[in-house]
Amino acid sequence: MKRIMLLSLLLLLATAVHGQEKDAAFIRKIYDEALAKGESYEMLRYLTKNIGGRLSGSPQAAAAVEWSRQQMMTYGFDTVYLQPVMVPHWERGEVEKGRIVNSKKYGSMPIEVTALGNSVGTGPKGTLGRLIEVKDFQQLAELGEKTIKGKIVFFNRPMDPRLLDTFSAYSGASNQRGSGPTEAAKYGAIGVIVRSLSSYKDGVVHTGSTNYGLNVPKIPAVAISTADADFLSDLLHDDPELQFYFETHSQMHEDVLSYNVVGEIKGTQFPDEIIVVGGHLDSWDLSEGAHDDGAGCVQSIEVLRLFKALNYRPKRTIRAVMFMNEENGLRGGRKYAELAAENNEKHIAALESDRGGFLPVGFGITGTESQQNKLLGWASLFEPYGLFQFKRGGGGADISPLRTQDVPTIGYLPDSQRYFKYHHTPIDNFEAVNQRELELGAASMAALIYLIDQYGL
Amino acid sequence: MKRIMLLSLLLLLATAVHGQEKDAAFIRKIYDEALAKGESYEMLRYLTKNIGGRLSGSPQAAAAVEWSRQQMMTYGFDTVYLQPVMVPHWERGEVEKGRIVNSKKYGSMPIEVTALGNSVGTGPKGTLGRLIEVKDFQQLAELGEKTIKGKIVFFNRPMDPRLLDTFSAYSGASNQRGSGPTEAAKYGAIGVIVRSLSSYKDGVVHTGSTNYGLNVPKIPAVAISTADADFLSDLLHDDPELQFYFETHSQMHEDVLSYNVVGEIKGTQFPDEIIVVGGHLDSWDLSEGAHDDGAGCVQSIEVLRLFKALNYRPKRTIRAVMFMNEENGLRGGRKYAELAAENNEKHIAALESDRGGFLPVGFGITGTESQQNKLLGWASLFEPYGLFQFKRGGGGADISPLRTQDVPTIGYLPDSQRYFKYHHTPIDNFEAVNQRELELGAASMAALIYLIDQYGL
Repeated sequence: MKRIMLLSLLLLLATAVHGQEKDAAFIRKIYDEALAKGESYEMLRYLTKNIGGRLSGSPQAAAAVEWSRQQMMTYGFDTVYLQPVMVPHWERGEVEKGRIVNSKKYGSMPIEVTALGNSVGTGPKGTLGRLIEVKDFQQLAELGEKTIKGKIVFFNRPMDPRLLDTFSAYSGASNQRGSGPTEAAKYGAIGVIVRSLSSYKDGVVHTGSTNYGLNVPKIPAVAISTADADFLSDLLHDDPELQFYFETHSQMHEDVLSYNVVGEIKGTQFPDEIIVVGGHLDSWDLSEGAHDDGAGCVQSIEVLRLFKALNYRPKRTIRAVMFMNEENGLRGGRKYAELAAENNEKHIAALESDRGGFLPVGFGITGTESQQNKLLGWASLFEPYGLFQFKRGGGGADISPLRTQDVPTIGYLPDSQRYFKYHHTPIDNFEAVNQRELELGAASMAALIYLIDQYGL
Repeated sequence: MKRIMLLSLLLLLATAVHGQEKDAAFIRKIYDEALAKGESYEMLRYLTKNIGGRLSGSPQAAAAVEWSRQQMMTYGFDTVYLQPVMVPHWERGEVEKGRIVNSKKYGSMPIEVTALGNSVGTGPKGTLGRLIEVKDFQQLAELGEKTIKGKIVFFNRPMDPRLLDTFSAYSGASNQRGSGPTEAAKYGAIGVIVRSLSSYKDGVVHTGSTNYGLNVPKIPAVAISTADADFLSDLLHDDPELQFYFETHSQMHEDVLSYNVVGEIKGTQFPDEIIVVGGHLDSWDLSEGAHDDGAGCVQSIEVLRLFKALNYRPKRTIRAVMFMNEENGLRGGRKYAELAAENNEKHIAALESDRGGFLPVGFGITGTESQQNKLLGWASLFEPYGLFQFKRGGGGADISPLRTQDVPTIGYLPDSQRYFKYHHTPIDNFEAVNQRELELGAASMAALIYLIDQYGL
């Protein structure tokens, strides 16, 4: 009896070791294909160079929908379809002007501004006023209506450069952009200037969405570069009377019809169990949306293409999803989860790539402890490829609505050091993406999807 | 007695834990200073933008020597001095021309070429001949003199894109450039074209040194881009009769006097024990030498500056060394080791940064097993900063001559994915270096030097 148990144990162990070897070998094939014959980079070239910026509701967003549909059809995925979704349609307008006026030292001088996404424009008369610089909402509250009324509030809290995870630094500063205009309006401000959310001191302006609260006046809001923010702050220190003028023509139109784009390979054994891998197809208008999030889209398509190229028939159904409207509404992500619930779909995992096409370092997972442990247990398979960071907690904006259905969500983690140089700027273009880093990301995502397909979560 | 032993053990353990905490805290300070107030990036800006490419023997190399001397003086290091060394003085010449001729399909068409470093020029008459494409020296030998004599050999073996460590891929292809001209000359070739050593297919030409063997004719040699190499290979397949013409005016002059630049902070407890941290100051002429190796130089200076900024007085003597002539002679590295032996200096470790200013991932060490174990034992202190790769084996070209004195050599390992896009090209410029990556590298190097200073190797 003891001998039989020992033999069974040895057999189990041998099977496990064999499984690990088989997985390691297949993962090696995935990386080889992605690095030697990958197509993510050429897909990204098309999406960024031939289509370009693709804000929700724009003709370019529609072009991106059609391109990704055709691309996935060309690759011969089993099913490719669109999920209709109504999205906000905000437009920046042609002209954006900013100017310091009545400076003792410089008189009048231009400063580049860019309207925050979703913000109202000033119209042709512009907004002119004195500036009140604050670091946070507490300081704003302390100054109160008597100081702020009729003025332009200048939010100037930098991202903390000491944080290794730049997304943490971003989180620590981003409420200035997201809620700053609403908070300032509560005290009677007539406009808002926000220091760009950047890890770098340079002359690049970063847009991004602001969200107006209910029952508070919508006041116009712009971002200026970090270099200009420091310059303006120094100037204000010696010359608090100076004024700022800006003119924007942004406006929110009626919602328009757009789409999530879905491509899938049907599972051979458990076709009803769905694994999602996705990114968001929309981007800001200023940029080509290369890192944010063209990279995540082409990597997701590439995951399925890699499986087909390697003749891998998944046990479960694998879906590449291009979500629409992450940037200024998250309507696509919400719609996807809504339809999943309506159709009683069983999602066993969702993976999002929305942190740029940089060097892969790991994955983070939100789910039960056992789901987390399963992911963490696979870490050693990724070490040969430089991924060492497997974390509890993670996901992505577009897949977050699936959490109400208890779907474990996984965030693909590329290194974050360079992301906030490009994020929401005109320089988030194709040239900012490195081919091998993009390919390694796609391969890493495919390897993880393969493991989930083999063993579930 | 047992109780005393137990108490001693606990005390030891407590001291060790306290030591770890103290080290972790100081390392945190190093990273904070480097990320929030680092100066490596501004130093690199000066070296690349105000001085530029600085090939051994050039006026720019002399300027770089004087700049780094002054920079270290300004920082108030205890001693700053020059080590005279005679270096090769090779010049590219003004004109480089390449051209496909007698192509059935295109007639005559220009192809960008760049002379390999140290190579002889063709002179104004140029070199014209039919092409023999080979992948390696074995194929060359098999073809032999009867096929090769009077022709131009075209070495076209790519770097293997599947290798995660791109330096391994480089090693697998670089003998074509280093020894190709000599090997081809043995069979009577009149010239050599080498496929650029790049991880990418693009239009960028990569120079780099070739080394002529003794008693073999020195034939002119150029590199073409990977995209042109593929194009030319396809063309040759259908049209083996086509010819290639190239004209270069490079020449080797007499050796000239140059210098290693050394800056040091004297140790308080063991001033005779020396720890070196360095990079090489020379670069190829085509580029600003930003990643190769301006980054390593400014990081090495920054290590000492960080110690001063944090009021850290090292126990041992820490030396920043800017080596001269790594690219086409290694005279500076050899001279440094020669002087160390002559002066009976006791070097306890040498660290080199010569793999670009990219994201730090770890360190590699060549030394005794106990030295290697000591380094590997510190790995966990670096995990919060994303460094997980601590390896046996490593160093750098300039510090390699110290191995004959049994000095343990350590190579700083940044991620290698992007390096061979820029290596030895006109695009290895300041803009190709990311500030945070450069700073994180300097901090990682300073953290390691701190640990070696505290505990030896």
